[in-house]
Amino acid sequence: MSSKINQVQQWLNTNQLDVAYFSDFHSISYLTGFESDPIERILALVVFAQDDPIIFAPALEVEAVKSTGWQFPVYGYQDHENGWQILANHIKENTNHLTHWAIESEQLTLARAELIKSALPEIKFEGDLTEIIQNMRLHKSDDEIKKMHLAGDDADLAFEAGFAALQTGTTELSVAASLEFETKKRGIPGMSFETLVQFGAHAADPHGATGLTELKKGDMALFDLGTIHDGYVSDATRTVAFGNVSDHQRDVYQVVLEAQLAAQSQVKPGMTASELDGIARDVITKAGYGEYFVHRLGHGLGSSVHEFPQIMGGNDLVLEPGMAFSIEPGIYIPGDMGVRIEDSIVLTESGADSFTHLSKDLRIID
Amino acid sequence: MSSKINQVQQWLNTNQLDVAYFSDFHSISYLTGFESDPIERILALVVFAQDDPIIFAPALEVEAVKSTGWQFPVYGYQDHENGWQILANHIKENTNHLTHWAIESEQLTLARAELIKSALPEIKFEGDLTEIIQNMRLHKSDDEIKKMHLAGDDADLAFEAGFAALQTGTTELSVAASLEFETKKRGIPGMSFETLVQFGAHAADPHGATGLTELKKGDMALFDLGTIHDGYVSDATRTVAFGNVSDHQRDVYQVVLEAQLAAQSQVKPGMTASELDGIARDVITKAGYGEYFVHRLGHGLGSSVHEFPQIMGGNDLVLEPGMAFSIEPGIYIPGDMGVRIEDSIVLTESGADSFTHLSKDLRIID
Repeated sequence: MSSKINQVQQWLNTNQLDVAYFSDFHSISYLTGFESDPIERILALVVFAQDDPIIFAPALEVEAVKSTGWQFPVYGYQDHENGWQILANHIKENTNHLTHWAIESEQLTLARAELIKSALPEIKFEGDLTEIIQNMRLHKSDDEIKKMHLAGDDADLAFEAGFAALQTGTTELSVAASLEFETKKRGIPGMSFETLVQFGAHAADPHGATGLTELKKGDMALFDLGTIHDGYVSDATRTVAFGNVSDHQRDVYQVVLEAQLAAQSQVKPGMTASELDGIARDVITKAGYGEYFVHRLGHGLGSSVHEFPQIMGGNDLVLEPGMAFSIEPGIYIPGDMGVRIEDSIVLTESGADSFTHLSKDLRIID
Repeated sequence: MSSKINQVQQWLNTNQLDVAYFSDFHSISYLTGFESDPIERILALVVFAQDDPIIFAPALEVEAVKSTGWQFPVYGYQDHENGWQILANHIKENTNHLTHWAIESEQLTLARAELIKSALPEIKFEGDLTEIIQNMRLHKSDDEIKKMHLAGDDADLAFEAGFAALQTGTTELSVAASLEFETKKRGIPGMSFETLVQFGAHAADPHGATGLTELKKGDMALFDLGTIHDGYVSDATRTVAFGNVSDHQRDVYQVVLEAQLAAQSQVKPGMTASELDGIARDVITKAGYGEYFVHRLGHGLGSSVHEFPQIMGGNDLVLEPGMAFSIEPGIYIPGDMGVRIEDSIVLTESGADSFTHLSKDLRIID
């Protein structure tokens, strides 16, 4: 039995629960190594306190589950079948203790909760797996950290491909396409999210999308990207100048850089997420740009791009070794310019260990 | 007021409900034109039976909502704030009738349902918006159909870019990257899903991912792709032969083609989804390949790639004009080969109107 599933079983026993029902495919990927988004189909990992776990999946996915080395039962269902009833039957075949359930309350919908209860009227939802799975995922193992370092190496290379594609008149979409093309050509199977490229004033919209804005001399170009290595992701941002840089642009850049470096160099176990956010925010506020830093400092990442911990004001979570998260301050001046600088790191006893290593000094691309 | 939101208000009044709480970003995009995946942040469209609707969004997104032409209040919240309490306060500011709610039970999680109820203890969840929104989305307007035709035109071009990248020794990922690069260079902002390219025996895994399989003469190459035009998607599949084709490959291809053409030419209003699935499945079963057609015939699409109707056995939904869905039979012989052929169509009084037009005759790429 994998030690991760064993931890879930121990938690069930400690909490006097019978069944842990995992339905978030990120959790299932984390616990079993089987990674697939079932979209609207049913995918579940059911861990029993006293019996071997089972996976229930679309029939199409059964062979893929087995090929991950899964040693326990895996059951499939076809699209035209009543999946919930078949799942219920398999659960009853595999355990005699099925009354007291823990579910993922942040993933399970009201409709699916009703369908499960209709198929198994005797069950009671008494526990929430959110906290235990988040806690497990929050502390990365050496193996996970190694994969994240490899993903970070790929991200470093992806930036260079993007910088190389910058030329007057090119569009953000064209640069993103070149970057992803060069990255995939090297055999990197996928980006962890749609690559964001923003030029000039468009970079002032921190949630804007890569579009048809054309590059001109004197623009800054913001790249936010990530890659996937063996199920683990990278996420980093660099902003470069194209052609030349004004004093104003350089000033804003240096403030963001100072904020990023302050947070990354000062982060330590024992500090809260809120305190870390404050370190970067104070630098930007003191420089007079506080109103333009409109998002949290960072977010956790690992087998997904957005997970715990959230690095933001008000979060009193104490940071501990093994936690991995982004540090990404930004200044966004509407109609003018935007700069964001981001590394993702894992916290060690002695501080931040960054997954990306590309220089953060202001770079002017000619 | 948009006619779509008006329809929701009428439905609320008919059902004696006060509030329609939409939390699925696909629904919000459909109803308002504002398209953004908030990931773990809160995004809600709240339609009141007797008052003007509001949008509640991350602070970062407020300007983007306004820029879509939204005429009603939009409120933002910052990451460090208690979004649920702020949302509750804005709801109370905007209506005096807030007891009887309808929610999206297939999207709203148990955890979020609890948070909303904690912030607004007086409310009761009495209705489900799933059916009305699905019904609205199920019947495409002329404007939606026009966008889907334009997305289909882009998909036709994307296939050609992919075929042009086929050469001995190239990998699936490299071909997918070329295809997406050429597509994005033409200014098409995005694919509607990760492009699937599979060579040879790898195409026998209908849920496999684009990988490092290399192309060799005599392989078939399967392309499943889609593009987005103004918020509406295309989805189509073509399988081509590379270099040469064996009698066995040609035979399998012709069976799939016959099944696809049978379904696409015979589909009519009044037929059930299950009957349509049966038309294609019968062709494949009679040819002796029934066990290798392991998925439903098709799925609905529109502002997302997977929506209603599901075209599968057991679904007695009667097909009506304005419904848009894929027709995508396949034969997958493990260790040997896979063929899938797919057009997406909108149903008219007289039958199928396809969004893609690239020939489905067997094509041999040299």
